[in-house]
Amino acid sequence: MLLDQSQLPEREVFLFITDWRQVLDAIKTLKVRGAPAIGIAGAALMTLRAAEYVFAASESPEVEEDFDRVFVIDKQVNDIELYRIGLEYAAEMALNSRPTAVSLSNAINDCLSLIKEELDIKQDISIIANRLYELTSKMIVEDENRNRLIGANGAQLLKENSCILTHCNAGSLATSYFGTALGIIYTAFDQGKISHVYVDETRPVCQGSRLTAWELSQVGINSTLICDSMAASVMSEGKIHAVIVGADRIAANGDVANKIGTLSVAICASHFKIPFYVAAPNDTIDLSSLSGNDIPIELRDACEVSDIQLDSVQIFNPSFDVTPANLITAIITETGVYKPEEISDAILKVAN
Amino acid sequence: MLLDQSQLPEREVFLFITDWRQVLDAIKTLKVRGAPAIGIAGAALMTLRAAEYVFAASESPEVEEDFDRVFVIDKQVNDIELYRIGLEYAAEMALNSRPTAVSLSNAINDCLSLIKEELDIKQDISIIANRLYELTSKMIVEDENRNRLIGANGAQLLKENSCILTHCNAGSLATSYFGTALGIIYTAFDQGKISHVYVDETRPVCQGSRLTAWELSQVGINSTLICDSMAASVMSEGKIHAVIVGADRIAANGDVANKIGTLSVAICASHFKIPFYVAAPNDTIDLSSLSGNDIPIELRDACEVSDIQLDSVQIFNPSFDVTPANLITAIITETGVYKPEEISDAILKVAN
Repeated sequence: MLLDQSQLPEREVFLFITDWRQVLDAIKTLKVRGAPAIGIAGAALMTLRAAEYVFAASESPEVEEDFDRVFVIDKQVNDIELYRIGLEYAAEMALNSRPTAVSLSNAINDCLSLIKEELDIKQDISIIANRLYELTSKMIVEDENRNRLIGANGAQLLKENSCILTHCNAGSLATSYFGTALGIIYTAFDQGKISHVYVDETRPVCQGSRLTAWELSQVGINSTLICDSMAASVMSEGKIHAVIVGADRIAANGDVANKIGTLSVAICASHFKIPFYVAAPNDTIDLSSLSGNDIPIELRDACEVSDIQLDSVQIFNPSFDVTPANLITAIITETGVYKPEEISDAILKVAN
Repeated sequence: MLLDQSQLPEREVFLFITDWRQVLDAIKTLKVRGAPAIGIAGAALMTLRAAEYVFAASESPEVEEDFDRVFVIDKQVNDIELYRIGLEYAAEMALNSRPTAVSLSNAINDCLSLIKEELDIKQDISIIANRLYELTSKMIVEDENRNRLIGANGAQLLKENSCILTHCNAGSLATSYFGTALGIIYTAFDQGKISHVYVDETRPVCQGSRLTAWELSQVGINSTLICDSMAASVMSEGKIHAVIVGADRIAANGDVANKIGTLSVAICASHFKIPFYVAAPNDTIDLSSLSGNDIPIELRDACEVSDIQLDSVQIFNPSFDVTPANLITAIITETGVYKPEEISDAILKVAN
């Protein structure tokens, strides 16, 4: 069951999803978004794909016609190989759907490891769907737990009467529950430290005005919605004590890929000497990306920016940007508060 | 006759205006916008007000019921006093309609000086409307002439194959014709120097996506529309060689009030060491504003930002921000190219 975020805040519509293709569509069309949330959705997608084939396996189709590209299956291929191909195809679709958030590829790779292990060793199709279901359920619980730790680690950095600016949505809607950047705000609010939150509307998809403002409103935290272009002006008036954002992928050198516009906020915060914090779970740190240059940036459809077609006018719609480590005051994870340049060492130490 | 900018680019609708109240409404609702253009509209408003009363004067109404606040006119007041009160009321309405752009108050004050001179010395109502009409017509011609000088002065600063970023609309639509920031781009384009223009959409009213993209499309200049939050990302990729924007008011110390979001662009340009140019006529410089702190910033209706009303969520909608002089590479006017900190002296020298 998914809350359809594309309809918020006007309507709270829950989607009852029974088919992996529906999950894929929900990820692509931002019905579910937010790095940790699409990671969990990816695992759910694999679970549904696995369950579907268990139901359909008895038919042993020679051609899987529901694939976008049609696989002609060798008649010699056994059920296990057919099953593996189907799962790997779903994994490929999921991985290509939103390339920037590392949590999606982490989740899919965890699913593929589990599948490989089960199929190679036990040669048993029947248990895969259940194993993936357990994995997904575990991710949901663990995600909330680590968000609460991020919240506690971050809240200690904030002073009394703090006014926070945030960009995009890194709240309950972006995670299984509680959120990363908003998790810190929720924790600090419970501690009586939050006086006000400024919310960037976050063009073009407006996750700020549609989702973050709605989330804060649900909890009763006083907030002010501004256009992204107003953040510098609000900072110049001394109204902001700290900026807190989430992250979709953090490179080994501490560069952070996050929602488009984050870089601009970070540059302005640096200019006005306002602390700029990134809140994200440890698995957002991708040691295989040495710097922000190695992080793939998703380009989305022009119609998100404007429906108007004019001669000689193109539209550019990158969904993310990269904030270099030197503009970031600290990265806050479930295991602690780190300087960006120390993030790789710190995470490796924690993992060992 | 006014091109209704609120309907662009979908429809090109010209408004045939015969009543000063229609001009006031057009200014308030952004049917006409852009500092020089609303200055001219202000003079046209005063002209229509003057002409209207010439027509109505024979009736000598004791109460002018069409005023928002009703003036009860002393029966002893003669026609000239009644006429003056009517004009001063229209001037007050115009001045309050959009407080930030100095060209509007300049134009209204020029009209009031003319009115005072004519009424005090010649005691003649009948010629005021014609004199104001001549003043307005002269402003239209002079505005285009100085824009072409701004264009020439600015274009010499640009190198071959320049890619320019602009914010809001400072083009033909913002002036009588040709524009200030876009005037430079048009001149440089004619000189073969412009390879591409990036256009900030300019939330919340989207003067960039609706007006600047349309203007550039009319001339066939290749452009790319981006959300305001994407400017930093585009700059970080080395795509922008210079930023050029207009101005609504320039303080004596070189601080510039311009469309909200300009400050953010200036901070990012400074961060990436990209020249940041302000293009505006000399009369944008308001020596009575010592710094940006003295410039009134118009706050507009929340509904421009969002129609969604949520509990505990306010909306802040300042229409302008102030970019400090130290972030501005140069101010380009019809008389030359100036360092911001030298702008007052330079303008006083030119005036003498």
